[in-house]
Amino acid sequence: MEQVYVSYPSLDENKRHGAQQAGTQSETTQDKLIISNERPWKPWRSARSRIRGWAIRVQNAMLCLAGLEWYCYAALGVLMALMSFVMDLTVAKLLRAHHWLYSCLEGHKLLQFLCWTLYPACLCALSTSFSHSICPQSAGSGLPEMRAILSGVQLPDYLSLSNLFAKLVGLICTLSAGSSVFLGKVGPFVHLSNMVGAYLHRMYASACGTKQRRTQGDMLVVASAVGVASCFGAPISGVLFSIEVMGSHYSVRDYCPCFFAAVCGALSYRLLAVCSGEQETVNALFKTRFPTEIPYQPPEILFFALLGLLCGAVSCVYLFSHRWILRFVRANKLISRFIATEKTLYSGFVAFLLALVTFPYSAGSSMASQLTMRQLICSLLESTQWNSISHNATLLEESQQSLWQEWSPPGSSVYKTLGCFLIIKLWLLVLACTLPLPAGYFMPVFIYGAALGRFLGEGLAYLFPNGISPDTLSVINPGGYALVGAAAFAGAVTHTLSPALCALEMTGQSTHVVPILIATLISNAVSRSKHQPSFYDGISLIKKLPHLPSLIRACPKLSSVQIGRFVAPAGAVLQRGEKMAGVQNVLNNSTESQFPVVDTHESPTLLGTVTRDQLQAFLLEIQTEVLCKSLEDVCHIKPATLQLSPETTVKQVHCIMSVVREQRVFVTENGKLCGLITWKEVRSSAGKHTNTHTHTHKHTS
Amino acid sequence: MEQVYVSYPSLDENKRHGAQQAGTQSETTQDKLIISNERPWKPWRSARSRIRGWAIRVQNAMLCLAGLEWYCYAALGVLMALMSFVMDLTVAKLLRAHHWLYSCLEGHKLLQFLCWTLYPACLCALSTSFSHSICPQSAGSGLPEMRAILSGVQLPDYLSLSNLFAKLVGLICTLSAGSSVFLGKVGPFVHLSNMVGAYLHRMYASACGTKQRRTQGDMLVVASAVGVASCFGAPISGVLFSIEVMGSHYSVRDYCPCFFAAVCGALSYRLLAVCSGEQETVNALFKTRFPTEIPYQPPEILFFALLGLLCGAVSCVYLFSHRWILRFVRANKLISRFIATEKTLYSGFVAFLLALVTFPYSAGSSMASQLTMRQLICSLLESTQWNSISHNATLLEESQQSLWQEWSPPGSSVYKTLGCFLIIKLWLLVLACTLPLPAGYFMPVFIYGAALGRFLGEGLAYLFPNGISPDTLSVINPGGYALVGAAAFAGAVTHTLSPALCALEMTGQSTHVVPILIATLISNAVSRSKHQPSFYDGISLIKKLPHLPSLIRACPKLSSVQIGRFVAPAGAVLQRGEKMAGVQNVLNNSTESQFPVVDTHESPTLLGTVTRDQLQAFLLEIQTEVLCKSLEDVCHIKPATLQLSPETTVKQVHCIMSVVREQRVFVTENGKLCGLITWKEVRSSAGKHTNTHTHTHKHTS
Repeated sequence: MEQVYVSYPSLDENKRHGAQQAGTQSETTQDKLIISNERPWKPWRSARSRIRGWAIRVQNAMLCLAGLEWYCYAALGVLMALMSFVMDLTVAKLLRAHHWLYSCLEGHKLLQFLCWTLYPACLCALSTSFSHSICPQSAGSGLPEMRAILSGVQLPDYLSLSNLFAKLVGLICTLSAGSSVFLGKVGPFVHLSNMVGAYLHRMYASACGTKQRRTQGDMLVVASAVGVASCFGAPISGVLFSIEVMGSHYSVRDYCPCFFAAVCGALSYRLLAVCSGEQETVNALFKTRFPTEIPYQPPEILFFALLGLLCGAVSCVYLFSHRWILRFVRANKLISRFIATEKTLYSGFVAFLLALVTFPYSAGSSMASQLTMRQLICSLLESTQWNSISHNATLLEESQQSLWQEWSPPGSSVYKTLGCFLIIKLWLLVLACTLPLPAGYFMPVFIYGAALGRFLGEGLAYLFPNGISPDTLSVINPGGYALVGAAAFAGAVTHTLSPALCALEMTGQSTHVVPILIATLISNAVSRSKHQPSFYDGISLIKKLPHLPSLIRACPKLSSVQIGRFVAPAGAVLQRGEKMAGVQNVLNNSTESQFPVVDTHESPTLLGTVTRDQLQAFLLEIQTEVLCKSLEDVCHIKPATLQLSPETTVKQVHCIMSVVREQRVFVTENGKLCGLITWKEVRSSAGKHTNTHTHTHKHTS
Repeated sequence: MEQVYVSYPSLDENKRHGAQQAGTQSETTQDKLIISNERPWKPWRSARSRIRGWAIRVQNAMLCLAGLEWYCYAALGVLMALMSFVMDLTVAKLLRAHHWLYSCLEGHKLLQFLCWTLYPACLCALSTSFSHSICPQSAGSGLPEMRAILSGVQLPDYLSLSNLFAKLVGLICTLSAGSSVFLGKVGPFVHLSNMVGAYLHRMYASACGTKQRRTQGDMLVVASAVGVASCFGAPISGVLFSIEVMGSHYSVRDYCPCFFAAVCGALSYRLLAVCSGEQETVNALFKTRFPTEIPYQPPEILFFALLGLLCGAVSCVYLFSHRWILRFVRANKLISRFIATEKTLYSGFVAFLLALVTFPYSAGSSMASQLTMRQLICSLLESTQWNSISHNATLLEESQQSLWQEWSPPGSSVYKTLGCFLIIKLWLLVLACTLPLPAGYFMPVFIYGAALGRFLGEGLAYLFPNGISPDTLSVINPGGYALVGAAAFAGAVTHTLSPALCALEMTGQSTHVVPILIATLISNAVSRSKHQPSFYDGISLIKKLPHLPSLIRACPKLSSVQIGRFVAPAGAVLQRGEKMAGVQNVLNNSTESQFPVVDTHESPTLLGTVTRDQLQAFLLEIQTEVLCKSLEDVCHIKPATLQLSPETTVKQVHCIMSVVREQRVFVTENGKLCGLITWKEVRSSAGKHTNTHTHTHKHTS
C-alpha cells in the first residue's frame, strides 16, 4: 500500500497532517479507505488529485465570499430560467407543428376540423393522464397549496420530486394545446420553483448540518419570487408577488435573497434568449414601442380610472362564475363521479368543446382564434390604432399586418371581433378552469384584460380621432389602454397589485406607470368590496385549504374569535417527578417527539418540554444505575419560550406562529397547562367558520 | 327661541327624531346649544341648513364607499405632494435669485466671491438657528428616529407640529443654499410626511373613537412610502422603501394602503407640474432619452457588475469617513463645545468653507460647481458621449450644450473635471454631513454615484469608440452607466435596494432594469460585508437610538442573546385576594396604568392584569358597600394573552412585540411571574451590546 502514497506525497502529507490535527482515528481510516479504493490502473492519478485539491480550495474561497445559501439562491434562479426557456422552446415547436399541419390541410375542411380539435384534446388528455398517474397532486396551479405550506401546514406530497416531474411534463402538454384551451404557465411555475427550492434546501441542510441558519420557509418565499421572475424575466414583480401573495407578514431579511435570486433567474432567462439568437440584447419579453414624448394626455387619466372600474366589475362576474362552476362541478353528482373516475376523458372532452367553439370556420373566425397567446398579447399591445389601419393598411410592418388581419377579418370590424372575443372567451375561460391538469390562470386573465382595455381604447380612438385635446399632436394610443386593462383585470382577479409591475416589466413601458397603478388600485377596490374572496382564496375555500389571511378576508369576524375553544388537549403530559413506569407508559402510548412537563398532574403548571430522545436516555440511565432518580434529576427541561392564553385571538396566534415559525405553542391559563395550539387547530378554527361562510353563501346564491 | 325653529323645520325634525331615537338627554341639550348660538341676523339660513344637510349626506355616501382611513391616506398623499411642489418652487426661485445676483456682478471678482460664499452661509445659518430655536429635534434627516418610533419607541417630540414647521422652513433654507452645500430633501421629507401622518391619525382616531381599526404604526408606515413617492413622483420605490427601511417585519395589510397613498402623492405631484405648465403631461422627474432598440450590448453587463463593485468599494470609504467625522466631532472637546453653544456660527462657517472650495475661480471651475443639483443629474444622465461632443459640438441642443460646457471648461477635459468632482465632492459631502440642520443625504449620494458611473462610462466610450462589439451599430451610452452608478452607490450607502427602482422611476428608463439591479445587488454585497453598519445604522448607533434590526446587523451575536438578564422587575404586583389596604398602597406608590395580578405573593403565578380604573372602582365599591370583599370578587382580571420565558431570545421578543404591537409583555418562569419586558429593556439589551461594539470599534480603529 505504501507505493500508492509515493506518487502524490504533498497532498497526502496535508491529509495526514489534518488527520493528526483533528486527532480522530476515523478520519485516517477514511483516508486509507479512499486510497485503497483507488485502483492502480486509473490514469492521471496525480492530475486528478491536484484538481481535487484545487476544487477544495475553490470551494473554500467561494464560501469565504458568500454563505452557501447564496449559491443555492443563484442555482435556483439559473435552474428555473433554464427550465422556463426549455419549456418555451418545446411549446413553441409543438405549436408550430400544429399550425403547420393545419395549414397543410388547407382545402380539406373536415381534416382541418379534426386537426384543430383533436390536437388540443389529445394533449389535454395526455397532460391529465400523465400528471394523475404520476402524482395526483400536480393538477391545478398549485398556488393555493403553496400558500398553505408557507403558512406552516405540512403537505409533503406537494414538494416531492415526482410532483415536479409530473407537473413539468403536464404543463408542457397543457401549454402546447394552444390558445383554444387558453391556459398559462405562471402558477405552476411558481409551484415548480418551490419544489426545486425545497430540494435545494434539503441539500443545503444536509451540507450545513445543525448550524443552518435559513429555514425551508425562507427558501420557499425566495422560490416564489424566482418562479414569477424566471417566467417573465420580471424580477421586481416577482419579489412583490412573493410579498403580497405568499403570507401575511413579510420578513425583511428575505428581501435581499428574493431580489438576488429573482435577478439571477430573470437575467439567465433573458440571456438564454440572446444566446439562442431570439433577441439581440437583454430586452423586455413583450417589448412595445409606445410614443415616449407625450404618452397620454392628462385628461386621459380619467378614462384609465374608468377602465379600472370596468375591469373591477368584469372581474366580479368572472370570479363569481368561477366559484359557481367549481362548486357546480363538485356538487353535481353525475359530473363529479365522471371526473373522479374518468379524468382523462373529461379533459379531452372539455378541450374538444373549447376547440369546437374556436374553430376558425365556426365562431373562431370572429374572435382571432388563430393567434397564439404570445401573438394575442403582442397584437393587443400594438400602439397603432386599428381603426386607422382600416383606412391605410401600409401603416404597419408586414409581421404586424398579419396579426391585425386576424382581428379585422374581411367583412367584419375590429370592434365586432373584440366584442366577440370578450363575450365568448369569458365563458370558455371559466370552463377551462375546471380542467384537472397542471395549468396557470394568470396569463389568460392578463390577455382578457388587455382585450378589455383595447376595446375601450379603440372606442375612444373612434370618438376622438384627433386626440382628447386637439391642439396637441398626440392621438390616443389604444395599446396603452390594453396595457392598463391587462394589469387592472389581472390585479382585480387575484386581488394583488404586482400585476401592475408585471405589466411594466414585461413590456418595458415605464411611461404608463401612473395610469396602470391607478387602474389597478381602483379595480382592486371594486373586486375586494363586500369581502369577496380572490381567485386564489376562492380555490383555497373550496379545497378547504387553511390559508388564514384569505379566510380572514372572506370572513372578517374570524380575526376577533378567541382561540380558547379550539385548544387541543396537550396529549401525554409528564410531571416533574415522573418515575420510570410513567415515562415508559408515555413512550409506549404516544408517538410524539416532544412532551410537555408540568409541576404535578394535580396542579399542572407548565415547566417546559423534554424530547423523546431525552426520555429514552433517562430510561437507559435509570435501568443501569440508580433507581430512585426522577425525571427532573436526569433530563434538562427546556422551558417553553412562548405561552398563550385561551383569550388570545386567532389572528394574534396566526401572526405569532408565522413570525416565530413555531409549529406548536402551549396554552396556559393562570400558569396551568390547558392544551396546545398547532396549525391543525388554527386550520380547524378557520374551517368551522369557513363552513358556515360557505353555507351562508349557498343560501344567498 | 321657538321662532328660530320655524325657518328650517325639516332638518330640525330630523334632529329631534334622531335625539329621540338615541334616547339621550345630552344630545338634545347639544342641539339646543347649537341652535341658540345661531344669531337670528345670519343670512341665507335655509340655504345654509340645506347645504349642511347635503354635506352630511355626502359624508355618509363617502363613508359607504370606503372607510375613513382611506380618505386620510388620500389626504396625506395630496398634502405631501402639495408641500413638495411648493418647496420645489420656492427653492427654485431662491436659487435663481442667487444665480441672477452672481451673474450681475460679473467683472467684480471680490463681490462675486462674497455673493458666492455668503449667500449659502447665511441660508445655512438661518436654517440652523430657525430650526433649533423652534424645535431642536428637527435637525438631521430624521430617518433613524422615525425607524426607532416605528419599532415602538416613544419619541413624541419628533412627531409634533412645531417640529413640522421648523423642519419645513429649515429644509427650504438648506436646499436653497444650492449645490455648494450639496444636500438633499428625501430624508426630511419622509420625516415631514410622518409628522403629517401622525397628525392625520390623531384626527382619524378622534373621529372614530374606540372602534378605530388602524394604529398609528400603520399610518406611519404608509406615511414613509408617501414621503418618498411625493418627493420624486415615484410610488413603487416609495413602497419598497417603507418595506425595507422601516422595520423588520412588514405586515401585508399595510401594502394596499401604502400603494394607494403613494400613488395619490405621486400623481398629485406630477399633475401639479402639469398644471403649472412645467411639463406637458404626467412624466418622469428627470426624463431621459436613451436609445431603446439596443440599450446596451450583452457583454456590457460585466462592466455594469464592475461598476457595482466600484460603487461598493467607494461607499465603504464614504461610510467609514462619515462615521469617523461624526465620532470626531463628538469626541473633540473644542468642536463639540463650539457646536453645543454656537450651532448657527458653526453652520455658517462650514457652509462658507464649502462655498470657498466650490467658488468658480478656485477649485470650482474644475468640478462644474455652477450647476444646480437638478442640472447636475440631468447632465450626468445625458446619453450622448461627452467625448464625441468635444469633436463635434453641434450634437447637442442648446440647453444641453451650456450644461456640457460646465463639465468641459476651456483647457480641461471632461475626464479631469469628473475626476476632480469625484475626489473633492466626497470630502465636502462628508463635511456637510456634520451640519446641524434639516437635510437629506440621499440625493447627494445619488448624484455622486451618477458621476462615478459617468466616469466609467466615458472611459469605456474612449476605449471602445465603436461600441463593445463593432459589428452592431450601437455605441456605448455613458448615461446608462451614470444611471446604474447612481442606483448602485445610493443602494450601497443606505444598504437598500429601493434606489434601483427609484432610479428607474425618476428617469422613466425601463431598459436598464437588469443592469441596475445587478449593480445594486453587488454594491450592497460589498458594502454589507463584515457587518458594517449602513448610513442610517451608523447614525442610529452614534445617537444610541434603539433600532434592533440595525443593531443585529451591526452585532450579529445579539440575535441569540437570551432576554433573561434584561428582564425588569414587574413593579407593583397585586395578589388575587388583595384587600383594601394593599390596593390603596399600590395606587398611592405607583403611577402605572396597569398592574399584574398573581395568585399569592409567595407563589406568584401570573393570573392577568387589572387597570388603575378598575382598582379605583374597587376601592369605591368596598368603601360604600361590603368590607370583606377581595380584589378577585370585584374586578375582572384580564388574562395576559402572551407570556415569554427568560430563555426567549432578544430577536424573538423583538419579532413578537413588533408583530403584535404590544408595548409590554410579561415574563414567567414555570408559571411564576418574574418580570416584564418593555421596549426599554429591548433597547437596553441592545444598548449594552452596542456599547461593547463601539468600544471594540474604537480599539481597532
